[in-house]
Amino acid sequence: MPGPKGSTQSPQRVFSPFVSTVLTVIAPGLLGASVAQAARRHGAADRIKIWARRPETRLALNKSDWCDEAADTLSSAVEDANIVVVCTPVDRIIESIKSFSDSLGPDAVVTDVGSVKGEICRFASNALKNGAGFVGSHPMAGSEKSGMEHASADLFKDRPCFVTPLEQTPSESVDQVVSFWTRIGAEVVTLPPDRHDEIVAHISHLPHLAASALCSLMAGHDPSWRHYAGGGLRDTTRVAGGSPSLWLEILFENRDEVLRALASYQDELQGFHAALSNRDILQVKALLERGKDYRDQFRPR
Amino acid sequence: MPGPKGSTQSPQRVFSPFVSTVLTVIAPGLLGASVAQAARRHGAADRIKIWARRPETRLALNKSDWCDEAADTLSSAVEDANIVVVCTPVDRIIESIKSFSDSLGPDAVVTDVGSVKGEICRFASNALKNGAGFVGSHPMAGSEKSGMEHASADLFKDRPCFVTPLEQTPSESVDQVVSFWTRIGAEVVTLPPDRHDEIVAHISHLPHLAASALCSLMAGHDPSWRHYAGGGLRDTTRVAGGSPSLWLEILFENRDEVLRALASYQDELQGFHAALSNRDILQVKALLERGKDYRDQFRPR
Repeated sequence: MPGPKGSTQSPQRVFSPFVSTVLTVIAPGLLGASVAQAARRHGAADRIKIWARRPETRLALNKSDWCDEAADTLSSAVEDANIVVVCTPVDRIIESIKSFSDSLGPDAVVTDVGSVKGEICRFASNALKNGAGFVGSHPMAGSEKSGMEHASADLFKDRPCFVTPLEQTPSESVDQVVSFWTRIGAEVVTLPPDRHDEIVAHISHLPHLAASALCSLMAGHDPSWRHYAGGGLRDTTRVAGGSPSLWLEILFENRDEVLRALASYQDELQGFHAALSNRDILQVKALLERGKDYRDQFRPR
Repeated sequence: MPGPKGSTQSPQRVFSPFVSTVLTVIAPGLLGASVAQAARRHGAADRIKIWARRPETRLALNKSDWCDEAADTLSSAVEDANIVVVCTPVDRIIESIKSFSDSLGPDAVVTDVGSVKGEICRFASNALKNGAGFVGSHPMAGSEKSGMEHASADLFKDRPCFVTPLEQTPSESVDQVVSFWTRIGAEVVTLPPDRHDEIVAHISHLPHLAASALCSLMAGHDPSWRHYAGGGLRDTTRVAGGSPSLWLEILFENRDEVLRALASYQDELQGFHAALSNRDILQVKALLERGKDYRDQFRPR
C-alpha cells in the first residue's frame, strides 16, 4: 500500500516473499513524470518517490496521484529505493549519480534516460558502491515539448527502449531494468553502450542536424517562402523545433559518432550533387530509388 | 447544364452575358482528377471534359459524377474549352501543349500544374496561336500517393497555388486562371516563373534531396535500426517515399536552381561539422537556435 499523501516518513519495508517495490525518479520533467505516471498505471512500483529541485514542483507532486512522496534531498529520495531512474538533462546525469551513490541501499539498481550512453555507463558502473548496479537506458520516446505538464502514462507504450549493460554488469541488474521498462509498455532492445551511440547518431542526432541545417539555410531567405511550402518542408524540419540547449548537450556528449555520421551524410549529398551536375540520370535515379526502398520499409503507424 | 453522360457531341456554346464555362483537364492523375472534382463541387465550370489516354480510364470517367465527357483525342478535348488545365507529368507538358495548340478556340486560356515553371512558361506562351493565352500554375498540393483513386475535391483547399505569368502575358488570362484556383479553394500567389523555380528548389526540391540522401545513407546500415527510430527519422524522411521517376523529372527540369540550393545546404552542414569538430559550443548553439527560430514561425495546422 502506498503511504499517506505528502508523508515525509520513510515507508516501512516489508521483508516478505512479496517485497514491495520503491521507485525513485530523479527530476520530473517530461520523461521523469511520464516514468512515474506509467509506473503507477501499470503497477510497476508499490511506492513512487520523486526528487525535485524546486519547492513549487514538490508541492505539485504531493498533490498528484502518481507521486507518493516528493523528496527535497537526493539522499532521502534514494535511500530506500529498489530502482532509481535518473531523468536529469544528459550532462547532469553523472553529477547526480555521484551525489547520491553513498545513500543507495545494497540491492538498489540505478538506470537513467540519457540519450547518449558510452561515457555515462562507464562512469556510473564505477561510481556505484555497496554492490548497487547501474544499467543505462534510453527510451526512444519524447516530443518537442518538454516539462512535467506534457507528461503521459502512455509515453513509452510500444516505443523502443535501449538498455545498455556493460560486459561486467550483473545480469540480475539488467533483468530488473528490462522488466521495469517492459512493464510500463516499452519494447526493450539490449545492446552495448557504444553500439547504441553509433545507432542514435544516425537515427536521431543526424536527422536533427539535417533538419536544423535546412531551417538555418531557409532563415537566410525571404520569410514568406515558408507559407508556400507543402507538407514536405514542414515534416522534414519538424525536429528542428527541439530545444537548442538540450540538443547542444546531446551533440557534444556524442560528438565523435555524430561527426562520423554527419560526414557520411555530406558524402551522400555530394554524390547527389555530382550526379545531377553531370546529368547522370541513372545515378540520380538509383539514389532516389535506394532512398525510397529504405523509406517504404518503415512500419506503418 | 452539363450535357448527357458520355456524349461525344460538342456542347452548344451559349453566347450570352452568362457564358457557360467549359473546363478541360488533360490527364486525370491525382492532381487532374482533383481539379475536376473540386471544379464540380465549387461550380467552377458548367461542363467538365477530361482527356485520358487509356480506354479503361475513360470508361471510369464516364461513370463518375465529376466528368461530363471523357475525350479520346487532345483536339476534341480542348476544341470548345474556356480553360484547359494540363496535368500530365512535368516532362510531358510542353509536348502535350504542342499537340493541341491548333485546336484551341480564340478565347481559351491554358494553364498547367507542373512543379517547375521557367521553361514551360517561355515555351507555351510562344506555342499558343489564335490569341489563346498560357499562364503557368503550380498548386502546392499533393501527397506521396499518386493516381486518380487518391484524388479529392478538397486537395487544393487553403493550399498555396503559384500562378506565374510572364511580363507579356495578357492580364485577362492571368485573371481567369487566378479566379479558377481561388474558386476551387486555393490561396493564389502570383510571381514570375524564374522566381518560382528558385523558391520551390528551396522549399520542396531540396527537402526531398535531404530526405532521400538520409534514407540512401541509412540503407547502407543494419536494416533493424529503423525500428528503433523515434518520430524524428520518420518525419524527416517522409517525402523520400515519393515516386523516383516523378522526382527525377522535377530535379532535372529545375536542375540549375536545385544545384544552387543543394550547394548552400552542403555549406550549411559543413558549418555544423566545423563548429562541432572545433568544439565551438557558441557556434553550434547559434546554428541550432537559428534553425529553431525559423521552424517556430511556421503557421500551426
